[in-house]
Amino acid sequence: MSLHLYRDLEELKKRLVHLGNLVEVSIDKAVDAFVRRDRANAELVVTGDRDVDTAEVRLEEDCLKVLALHQPVAKDLRFVITVLKINSDLERMGDAAESVASRALQLQELPQFALPEELTQMVAMARGMTRKSLECFVREDAQAAREVLSDDRAVDTLQRRMFDLLQAEMKRDPAHVDPAILVLSMSRQVERIADLATNIAENVIFQLEGEIVRHRRAQMRLV
Amino acid sequence: MSLHLYRDLEELKKRLVHLGNLVEVSIDKAVDAFVRRDRANAELVVTGDRDVDTAEVRLEEDCLKVLALHQPVAKDLRFVITVLKINSDLERMGDAAESVASRALQLQELPQFALPEELTQMVAMARGMTRKSLECFVREDAQAAREVLSDDRAVDTLQRRMFDLLQAEMKRDPAHVDPAILVLSMSRQVERIADLATNIAENVIFQLEGEIVRHRRAQMRLV
Repeated sequence: MSLHLYRDLEELKKRLVHLGNLVEVSIDKAVDAFVRRDRANAELVVTGDRDVDTAEVRLEEDCLKVLALHQPVAKDLRFVITVLKINSDLERMGDAAESVASRALQLQELPQFALPEELTQMVAMARGMTRKSLECFVREDAQAAREVLSDDRAVDTLQRRMFDLLQAEMKRDPAHVDPAILVLSMSRQVERIADLATNIAENVIFQLEGEIVRHRRAQMRLV
Repeated sequence: MSLHLYRDLEELKKRLVHLGNLVEVSIDKAVDAFVRRDRANAELVVTGDRDVDTAEVRLEEDCLKVLALHQPVAKDLRFVITVLKINSDLERMGDAAESVASRALQLQELPQFALPEELTQMVAMARGMTRKSLECFVREDAQAAREVLSDDRAVDTLQRRMFDLLQAEMKRDPAHVDPAILVLSMSRQVERIADLATNIAENVIFQLEGEIVRHRRAQMRLV
């Protein structure tokens, strides 16, 4: 590999990590806005998503430049394509964070409603998966990537349990329909973040081992 | 452009259209299974998704081969990257169709429930958008791609209206909570199909005109 190509691939990796950090901040702020009913943070996420979008567009252009300039093959080509795919998944995570923030704003219009413990656990897991999925890419660690896949199954189980609880709650008291629907809808976005982290981990495994894991997990979602 | 490159790019396009057709069939069967409470069709979608997954993996490999073999630049490079992105969006549409099918199976366990008119309209629009998004890619028609973007706004409006109706219905009669939640959840998948068709249309516009439209639309979703 030429020194220029090596330098440019390292630069792509650096930019991807930068984008990942922006997205992590968005997720944290959005969840905080939802859990603490904090309007200022919710609004910051909406503004911050513009930075995510700009970074994503720029990184895609950088990938195309590297392809056109160096015409990489084999492992290096696969690396650039993986960056392109992770880039797109990170941007979608940013969108999911923005959706959580918008639900935080809606929740503030409603009376207090106790958030289920499962939601807190789901948020913590999805947050950890996001971090881990980026780390396994940076460190080229397929084992860590497999942990993300198993975390995703745990998130699905939590989501299912919470879904049942909230559904029962809505039947018990019609006054709980509005907030429960909002919590379910927010949890769907958290599940989506976990799914996207899983996509990233699957792509890392494929990049490292050439193994297609992305179609093995069950696709059936409850909510 | 060399004759070989031209032939290989045409082959990629053909395979993408083939994958698109598989996904369209899945969507039709899944919706039919939901609306008509038809178990056989729901099960066919789940089996059919394996073909979608196989076709997606194969097309990605073909794209990488074209990149490595011909090292295309400029317009041709952008074309291959667009195929890669549409490929991934089509596969996710297939997953959404599978989710609709799994909800169809759940709905069969519940008492009859009148489906809202808005759902039928949403389904018809999302179906049309899927077809149009592929056509605009094949015909290189940016104007048709813009129609998909405007259809997406109409789908969001329908979704919002249906959401309000079903939420009111759940408050009025707790016996309607279970089916209403399932219909909402199914409609989320239809909205997702419409979103993915919109992604495809945005990518087509970018490929043809270099214009980044994909971050302009509002990202806030209600459900």
